[in-house]
Amino acid sequence: MHALILGAAGMIGRRLTDALAQSGSLGGQALDALTLVDVVTPAVPDALAGRVTAQAADLSGTGAAETAIAGRPDVIFHLAAVVSGEAEADFEKGYRINLDSTRLLFEAIRQAHLAEGYRPRVVFTSSLAVFGAPLPPVIGDDMILTPASSYGTQKAMGELLLSDYTRRGFLDGIGLRLPTICVRPGKPNKAASGFFSGIIREPLAGQEAVLPVPDTVRHWFASPRAATDFLVHAAGIDLAPLGQRRNLTMPGVSATVAEEIEALRRVAGERAVALIRREPDPAILRIIETWPEAFATERALGLGFRADPSFDAIVALHIAETGAGPA
Amino acid sequence: MHALILGAAGMIGRRLTDALAQSGSLGGQALDALTLVDVVTPAVPDALAGRVTAQAADLSGTGAAETAIAGRPDVIFHLAAVVSGEAEADFEKGYRINLDSTRLLFEAIRQAHLAEGYRPRVVFTSSLAVFGAPLPPVIGDDMILTPASSYGTQKAMGELLLSDYTRRGFLDGIGLRLPTICVRPGKPNKAASGFFSGIIREPLAGQEAVLPVPDTVRHWFASPRAATDFLVHAAGIDLAPLGQRRNLTMPGVSATVAEEIEALRRVAGERAVALIRREPDPAILRIIETWPEAFATERALGLGFRADPSFDAIVALHIAETGAGPA
Repeated sequence: MHALILGAAGMIGRRLTDALAQSGSLGGQALDALTLVDVVTPAVPDALAGRVTAQAADLSGTGAAETAIAGRPDVIFHLAAVVSGEAEADFEKGYRINLDSTRLLFEAIRQAHLAEGYRPRVVFTSSLAVFGAPLPPVIGDDMILTPASSYGTQKAMGELLLSDYTRRGFLDGIGLRLPTICVRPGKPNKAASGFFSGIIREPLAGQEAVLPVPDTVRHWFASPRAATDFLVHAAGIDLAPLGQRRNLTMPGVSATVAEEIEALRRVAGERAVALIRREPDPAILRIIETWPEAFATERALGLGFRADPSFDAIVALHIAETGAGPA
Repeated sequence: MHALILGAAGMIGRRLTDALAQSGSLGGQALDALTLVDVVTPAVPDALAGRVTAQAADLSGTGAAETAIAGRPDVIFHLAAVVSGEAEADFEKGYRINLDSTRLLFEAIRQAHLAEGYRPRVVFTSSLAVFGAPLPPVIGDDMILTPASSYGTQKAMGELLLSDYTRRGFLDGIGLRLPTICVRPGKPNKAASGFFSGIIREPLAGQEAVLPVPDTVRHWFASPRAATDFLVHAAGIDLAPLGQRRNLTMPGVSATVAEEIEALRRVAGERAVALIRREPDPAILRIIETWPEAFATERALGLGFRADPSFDAIVALHIAETGAGPA
């Protein structure tokens, strides 16, 4: 079993790399080789050192996709993307990286398919950003994709390509719309969604966090571990039950900001909660109000994808993984 | 008012050209100039001869989109496409013409927007092929697009691009998912949907028609005139009520094959109906069974788009336009 991770240096890519290195297998088979690609050379995990190739590459460049798949990986995790804010700020870069690179990858696979019958499993990470307001309170698997960002547009187009290349037999694709990752490790960033993690992460580290929206705001979450588990699960399962619909919203935990704060209070007490500073930001609220609140993810559940059990469990996982916690 | 028709030599393009030439106006303004583009040089209508430019161009070629919009048309009708069967048979050509040409057009408009604030109305023809089985009996405006063909995939990707370029302010787009055109003029063709028109058109001309599916098959129809009216209407209306959702399923007539045949019987009698030869074709039935049967098109109706009143009216229109009819 040879796996390729495109976007291996990102937050999810690094966790996926570690998860594969620790298990040493994928889809019930021994992992003989792992190829890691990103715009910067990804770190090589110790456990698999002898079997890992790490490459720095711009996947929108000529021949880059062909080079990435030269070893004919059995499973390709395609996580490489520029994020929402960057795709919005730099229109051309967003389309080049998020759309063109995806198409170049699928085209390289198609050419190898035509030449030698190559047909890898491709696990593509899509996003909740494919959905745009107006949205129902609970979004079903049949909801139209009307992205309100260029990033969401590029991901929705990637989903369509994935389905068509799968239908034509060139690859065996599955697209996962990942929930918003929470608790996202690391420092506060400028993403509009940053506070969802910040109001847990910062108080647990004894630091102040800014909350720019009302407590009633509801959203859809998965822990970094759940997101990684989704990718690993997607690589190994039989996709025949999906038919031609190869893109799935992943299960998550639907929680309000108030429920997040209660979970924080239960584990870290009033002192932690007191570190959350309410600073309403109408601009952020306007963005967040158009986001999905909850999903009915029957198709993904039917294939065995499982959400975190609760927001408490998401917080507990963050504490266990980072050592953060009440002093 | 300057209008550009891309795909002006096709069946709908020619009708749209004639409709504009006859009215001499568009969106309540006098039509000063009309530019017609297709892979073959489109015919120039007499009524507008002095104001028409006709060009032969492959819109996927370098600079072709820039040339097509050089006159900065106020309204661009983008009908150019290779059809479903050809896009399925020639994968690369389908993506080149149906996806790349659309993107090149939108990019040419964006560059002109950035340089000089150009922002035309773009009327894009999409297709029911963006929908794929399993489908509910009546499809609402929120139904997910899961195309079961490369053509449908390319149209769905065009819809997403149209929305994003509109959202970013580069153009003012509206996408119309046209019903299956019936009665389609001309000779029988090899399209899987050909019999829907054939069982009306051929008997009215005193010729035999083959019916490859059961009488219970239901589908969604518009006359050629209704389709042309949709395009003209889309060019002139205020699109603000659409918000960011710029793609609409057009109203149609939902009719079964049995209802088609009854309409034929009413106008042309038993002798015409006797010319329909039932010749079940499981391959065609398998394709047709995955097609949509009916839609609830509230959003389009709210904007003033109107379907043909009945299948009888569709047949009557065909007779009036072609002179076909009971001997």
